Amino acid sequence: MSKLLLINGPNLNLLGVREPGIYGQTTLKDLEEQLTAFARENQLDLSCFQSNHEGAIIDAIHDARNNFSGIIINPGAFTHYSYAIRDAIASVDVPVIEVHISNVHKREEFRHISVIAPVCEGQIVGLGITGYKLAILAFKEWLERNV
Amino acid sequence: MSKLLLINGPNLNLLGVREPGIYGQTTLKDLEEQLTAFARENQLDLSCFQSNHEGAIIDAIHDARNNFSGIIINPGAFTHYSYAIRDAIASVDVPVIEVHISNVHKREEFRHISVIAPVCEGQIVGLGITGYKLAILAFKEWLERNV
Amino acid sequence: MSKLLLINGPNLNLLGVREPGIYGQTTLKDLEEQLTAFARENQLDLSCFQSNHEGAIIDAIHDARNNFSGIIINPGAFTHYSYAIRDAIASVDVPVIEVHISNVHKREEFRHISVIAPVCEGQIVGLGITGYKLAILAFKEWLERNV
Amino acid sequence: MSKLLLINGPNLNLLGVREPGIYGQTTLKDLEEQLTAFARENQLDLSCFQSNHEGAIIDAIHDARNNFSGIIINPGAFTHYSYAIRDAIASVDVPVIEVHISNVHKREEFRHISVIAPVCEGQIVGLGITGYKLAILAFKEWLERNV
Amino acid sequence: MSKLLLINGPNLNLLGVREPGIYGQTTLKDLEEQLTAFARENQLDLSCFQSNHEGAIIDAIHDARNNFSGIIINPGAFTHYSYAIRDAIASVDVPVIEVHISNVHKREEFRHISVIAPVCEGQIVGLGITGYKLAILAFKEWLERNV
Amino acid sequence: MSKLLLINGPNLNLLGVREPGIYGQTTLKDLEEQLTAFARENQLDLSCFQSNHEGAIIDAIHDARNNFSGIIINPGAFTHYSYAIRDAIASVDVPVIEVHISNVHKREEFRHISVIAPVCEGQIVGLGITGYKLAILAFKEWLERNV
Amino acid sequence: MSKLLLINGPNLNLLGVREPGIYGQTTLKDLEEQLTAFARENQLDLSCFQSNHEGAIIDAIHDARNNFSGIIINPGAFTHYSYAIRDAIASVDVPVIEVHISNVHKREEFRHISVIAPVCEGQIVGLGITGYKLAILAFKEWLERNV
Amino acid sequence: MSKLLLINGPNLNLLGVREPGIYGQTTLKDLEEQLTAFARENQLDLSCFQSNHEGAIIDAIHDARNNFSGIIINPGAFTHYSYAIRDAIASVDVPVIEVHISNVHKREEFRHISVIAPVCEGQIVGLGITGYKLAILAFKEWLERNV
Amino acid sequence: MSKLLLINGPNLNLLGVREPGIYGQTTLKDLEEQLTAFARENQLDLSCFQSNHEGAIIDAIHDARNNFSGIIINPGAFTHYSYAIRDAIASVDVPVIEVHISNVHKREEFRHISVIAPVCEGQIVGLGITGYKLAILAFKEWLERNV
Amino acid sequence: MSKLLLINGPNLNLLGVREPGIYGQTTLKDLEEQLTAFARENQLDLSCFQSNHEGAIIDAIHDARNNFSGIIINPGAFTHYSYAIRDAIASVDVPVIEVHISNVHKREEFRHISVIAPVCEGQIVGLGITGYKLAILAFKEWLERNV
Amino acid sequence: MSKLLLINGPNLNLLGVREPGIYGQTTLKDLEEQLTAFARENQLDLSCFQSNHEGAIIDAIHDARNNFSGIIINPGAFTHYSYAIRDAIASVDVPVIEVHISNVHKREEFRHISVIAPVCEGQIVGLGITGYKLAILAFKEWLERNV
Amino acid sequence: MSKLLLINGPNLNLLGVREPGIYGQTTLKDLEEQLTAFARENQLDLSCFQSNHEGAIIDAIHDARNNFSGIIINPGAFTHYSYAIRDAIASVDVPVIEVHISNVHKREEFRHISVIAPVCEGQIVGLGITGYKLAILAFKEWLERNV
Repeated sequence: MSKLLLINGPNLNLLGVREPGIYGQTTLKDLEEQLTAFARENQLDLSCFQSNHEGAIIDAIHDARNNFSGIIINPGAFTHYSYAIRDAIASVDVPVIEVHISNVHKREEFRHISVIAPVCEGQIVGLGITGYKLAILAFKEWLERNV
Repeated sequence: MSKLLLINGPNLNLLGVREPGIYGQTTLKDLEEQLTAFARENQLDLSCFQSNHEGAIIDAIHDARNNFSGIIINPGAFTHYSYAIRDAIASVDVPVIEVHISNVHKREEFRHISVIAPVCEGQIVGLGITGYKLAILAFKEWLERNV
Repeated sequence: MSKLLLINGPNLNLLGVREPGIYGQTTLKDLEEQLTAFARENQLDLSCFQSNHEGAIIDAIHDARNNFSGIIINPGAFTHYSYAIRDAIASVDVPVIEVHISNVHKREEFRHISVIAPVCEGQIVGLGITGYKLAILAFKEWLERNV
Repeated sequence: MSKLLLINGPNLNLLGVREPGIYGQTTLKDLEEQLTAFARENQLDLSCFQSNHEGAIIDAIHDARNNFSGIIINPGAFTHYSYAIRDAIASVDVPVIEVHISNVHKREEFRHISVIAPVCEGQIVGLGITGYKLAILAFKEWLERNV
Repeated sequence: MSKLLLINGPNLNLLGVREPGIYGQTTLKDLEEQLTAFARENQLDLSCFQSNHEGAIIDAIHDARNNFSGIIINPGAFTHYSYAIRDAIASVDVPVIEVHISNVHKREEFRHISVIAPVCEGQIVGLGITGYKLAILAFKEWLERNV
Repeated sequence: MSKLLLINGPNLNLLGVREPGIYGQTTLKDLEEQLTAFARENQLDLSCFQSNHEGAIIDAIHDARNNFSGIIINPGAFTHYSYAIRDAIASVDVPVIEVHISNVHKREEFRHISVIAPVCEGQIVGLGITGYKLAILAFKEWLERNV
Repeated sequence: MSKLLLINGPNLNLLGVREPGIYGQTTLKDLEEQLTAFARENQLDLSCFQSNHEGAIIDAIHDARNNFSGIIINPGAFTHYSYAIRDAIASVDVPVIEVHISNVHKREEFRHISVIAPVCEGQIVGLGITGYKLAILAFKEWLERNV
Repeated sequence: MSKLLLINGPNLNLLGVREPGIYGQTTLKDLEEQLTAFARENQLDLSCFQSNHEGAIIDAIHDARNNFSGIIINPGAFTHYSYAIRDAIASVDVPVIEVHISNVHKREEFRHISVIAPVCEGQIVGLGITGYKLAILAFKEWLERNV
Repeated sequence: MSKLLLINGPNLNLLGVREPGIYGQTTLKDLEEQLTAFARENQLDLSCFQSNHEGAIIDAIHDARNNFSGIIINPGAFTHYSYAIRDAIASVDVPVIEVHISNVHKREEFRHISVIAPVCEGQIVGLGITGYKLAILAFKEWLERNV
Repeated sequence: MSKLLLINGPNLNLLGVREPGIYGQTTLKDLEEQLTAFARENQLDLSCFQSNHEGAIIDAIHDARNNFSGIIINPGAFTHYSYAIRDAIASVDVPVIEVHISNVHKREEFRHISVIAPVCEGQIVGLGITGYKLAILAFKEWLERNV
Repeated sequence: MSKLLLINGPNLNLLGVREPGIYGQTTLKDLEEQLTAFARENQLDLSCFQSNHEGAIIDAIHDARNNFSGIIINPGAFTHYSYAIRDAIASVDVPVIEVHISNVHKREEFRHISVIAPVCEGQIVGLGITGYKLAILAFKEWLERNV
Repeated sequence: MSKLLLINGPNLNLLGVREPGIYGQTTLKDLEEQLTAFARENQLDLSCFQSNHEGAIIDAIHDARNNFSGIIINPGAFTHYSYAIRDAIASVDVPVIEVHISNVHKREEFRHISVIAPVCEGQIVGLGITGYKLAILAFKEWLERNV
């Protein structure tokens, strides 16, 4: 069974608590359980990781190198300035999909720029937690095509 | 059965012909057939429309007002300057998902800006023609939740 | 009786329907009837035209060359990028007044710039559909002065 | 009879004298008399004020609070930098229309920006002294509708 | 007893009247009385001045040269463009603290820049009229340390 | 005999009428006849097309794919913003030369940028209608070299 | 007794050591003791935290959610780019005051921008370590008013 | 005897007091006496005016219209933003020379731009109070040539 | 027989040697011989000049004043910053055509701007060494028309 | 024997693994051994440290204060935004040389700016791992000169 | 007798010939004779130098080091980009005054910036060839004061 | 013995004389002798060249093509704008190292940009004249590796 890594970045531990008008009421724990189950239904094994520490996220990306077939990352606010995470993604061979729960293009100007997108396969933005599920399905299709 | 409208913008009629290194070898006709079938499997009725004319796309969006539950749009190069399409989307009550086949953030600078994204529900970028399927699934989930 | 041409640009066909909080509840048909009557009261003959197609608007401006004494144009979103409409206005000898229903300076940044204003006689912004009437009166005074 | 206040900003005391190629030959006194008469014909009482002093214009706007139903302002060059006048307008409840005699969009780049427009009801630009009359008529229609 | 000068800039005479959602309901008179009393409790003598005229504020700063131990200034909208007030502060030897009632960084972009801050001792922003009191206390501590 | 396509963009139908100070007095019909003859003298078959509609120009470029050995395009004002025409040119295999009658670098700032030039073979600017002839000769030489 | 949290960001552990010309000679330990005592005199219980790790500061802000009535933060250089700390502040319900010891507006250009200020209650800048005391007093007044 | 008007703008009343390192130790009174005498030696009658009020300077420029053959102006900080003074100069027929005592190009960036220079005859910058004398001599030569 | 001057700027002496992928394999000597012959066939006398020295190019332009009917210049990298060459062209009465061998719009951003184009008759870009020939033909047509 | 500290920033732990086309095939362990030996040959004692955590790098710089004569730092992507590392370097008295293995000026635009360079002694860029050796030699010469 | 050096930059050899509408009809030779005589009347010995070569101007500035008491330079178009001339001026101890014949602030935008002004004593702009004379007088006064 | 060319650009002939606070007291002659000796110790033959003329530097780079194994260049102020030198370097096959004596990143903003760095192997900045030696050593290692 192919393995995927889910990385949630800073402040996503407060999901369901923080600004529910923007992010909804599902907690991070709910989200991770829901997505792990959804992955399993789709014959994929999802590991979940969250950190508010840029360095810890970089370490996790590095560790994924020989262990995962894909990474789904919601880099939170690191999206807009962490060139170090960008370099981490570029330096491993694992394909990455960037997910944002809210439509960042409807929000403050600084959220319109992702320094990470250019080194990812693609981006799913603004579709709520459904976005994570779609990323799982994208990997599923991608992995099946390459079998 | 809920109805979705697929709008493909300028130059996408050349899909499979134009720059296959970037856009793949599926033709527009293939794509539309494949997506219509995929929608049907998911209990959705997909209508397909393509035009190289900005005005024709605006007209199509207007016509969707009372007839469709959702629009999937790949605005092609209009993404980057057609405030008129943006206004068309904002002036109808139909939710819209923006899809790009290639990862625009890996390409020329002018492709990094979408003037349309702020009035859409969300964006799916860089996941090839899988991106269209994911948009269909997003609408499916959204429509089921609202039943 | 002097003839004026009224051109409404993209999405104005949805007037009264689209974002009534911004644009009010008068429909385009109402507006055109009301303004035609108002023009007639002021001894002016108003022809009305609306299109979502940039090219069609350019054609209409060209056709006005030998047929109209003035043009009132609300270019909608074309205001902000259609250098082609700008050139069309510059290439005919008919005086043009630009009208915007809403106060574009209170809205998104991209609406603050008009690429068309520099080739018009003037602009009337933010006064609702009264703005169109004032444009008619401005032409009236201008035409009387030049008799 | 409803009362309107006309405020002309810096250098408009030289109207008819200063750059007649741009501003015409009517003097400020002529203009004020002409507009006062025009207002009276339209059942409106117009008071006229001109100053080259930013502070005096702010004071005049403040004083208008309980005394006038509307303000017509040509802020002259203050248009482009007086955030203090902008705040003055925002801090009184009186509706304001901004008028410019010349088409500022045909002139130097710095004249294309109005820091005042976002707090006004609207703008009339480039229609000569007719612009002031149209502003009076706009207030007339607005006041009649609200009776 | 050391003397402090309080300068309130344009539109602050409307305090308690203007946009109470932003600025609260205390009037300028209330504010000045409250702060004078507060200063006296802290063994400081506060003089109060308000003007909508940039030149009058410059004059007041000049006059403070030999008469005051410190200036508390809320320059209102002059904050964002009055290099003349900046030069006035730089040309006298009196320490100055800049105070803003509202958090200017939450408001329009033009309010994020202060051309005056670089020549002041410091800034207190967004703490309501408490900000003025804190400025008085800062001067108190500063004056006691220098006795 | 090799075939070339001449595309003239918006407002060029008014050639000889519009701003003759800038564009000269030859009409579009004259121009097309003159160039067709000139091409024939050079053993080339020139087809002529003009439109004010961006979409029609895109369609024409697509249709040229299997039918023409080269395209000469004067995109008019579309030069400065039509990324859709740019993509159309990039998506066909036909070499394209961009021609401007006037020296755009002597005119308004917005005319200095061509979004189309990076996907053309080259540009000929400011040499009047001679520029079109030179483009024909360039294709002639290019075609002869590849025989 | 209400509880406040004091967060000092990167390099503030070197206070009294680092660039004393700018930051003075008080060490961080001195500062924390002095402020804790000052808070106690004002019936407030101050907890102190310092870290050079952005993630640790985010964690501390999250932990403050149910435990503190207010946060005083000097984000050091994170002020200028840590959108992650900004989001952390926005995601908890605790009011925050930003403090800078030096007048950042007198220093390098990059120090003039705070990405954090828009989500704080306010800012105190340039008043030395007195600034921290003023922040304590601001919270005191704010807490008393809400009792 | 031809008459010249000397206008000194904001903060120049503190000359000899304010930042003597930059502006020297001559007071405004000294300067005016010295320049009046120097003008007289050169058969010119110099009137002197100083104000910290932008409006007063505009009034003075207007009054100069029929009374003076030339104006020497040091607009102080108004140099950098007073488009109203710029318009005042443009609206009178009197030639104007702009003088700055210090070399503004060696100082803060905002001092590098003069919004007034484009409507003056010329500028003399950085030559101390000698700059004023040179302006007098320039007018002398100019007036003699035109006799 | 009319005389033309060909000026090639810096690094063009390495033509055929330098980056042949971009510039082709013709050496400068080849080019000059080929163009001289081509000019002669067209009844024009071409003189050739190359220099890596900006000053030498300026001198050559000055010397052309009374001796040549036209200049063809490829200013190499001076295109992008030599305002001195621009002024030289503007100060002589000889018409100038700017030629670039490669399509500068496909290359680094700094190559997209020509400071020289606004003072030339026109530009020929990206057509290889054919571009020079077209410039000769343009002059031929221009000279014949003016006989 | 003088002591130097080598700090390698984020993603440099993947040296030899990550993008070998850019960074070569030496691993971090190889590099550290090679440089330690090289330092020892030059009578210098090199300690090596690598971290993906900005905070850990700041801590390491602080700890170097009394223990090292010089720091060689390759800040990886932190180069471009970590003002916190910049402040850390500025707050210790140890001289620092910044090293980049690849020529950052040949790569993406964001890599052209170093926010850290202004507080270092100097920079060595693009010379591969030789660059580290040169930094060691620079310290050697600097230390010998100061004995 | 103190010695001054006059340096005229590129294209000024065409003075009296080039664009007389802007620069007048005096030739360079006339100018140099006139200024030499004027200097002599003022007890100053003026040497004159003109070159179109940046390097030659740098050499001349270097040579002035031990031989001249002052330099008057009109750098022509080098004003706007020659940082090398700027460095030359900064590297000699001779005071320099920059002169421009025309009012550069009335001309193209690129002429508004002088990269040389920050290292000169001052600038005289727009006063025709009188400007050179005023520079001579400025040096005279400066030299007399320092005797 | 491999040959290296040392090129020093404008104003470096004044080394030891010009701004010794920034550049030290070694003269150019000293520097060249010292470096030639150092090169010889390292089995390399160094030729030295200095010029204030951009064209002469370009010529020298061209001449190095078949004669040198490497170039060390300090382009002085040409660093910031000489695209012609950039092209010269790009057009020869000789590897180039750029050296700056001072840390340009601590100085004026315009010195932070090198238009030449992208075509060099690398850069050594701010290490005084040691920087030149390090460049020699870098070439030594590079040449040995390629034997």
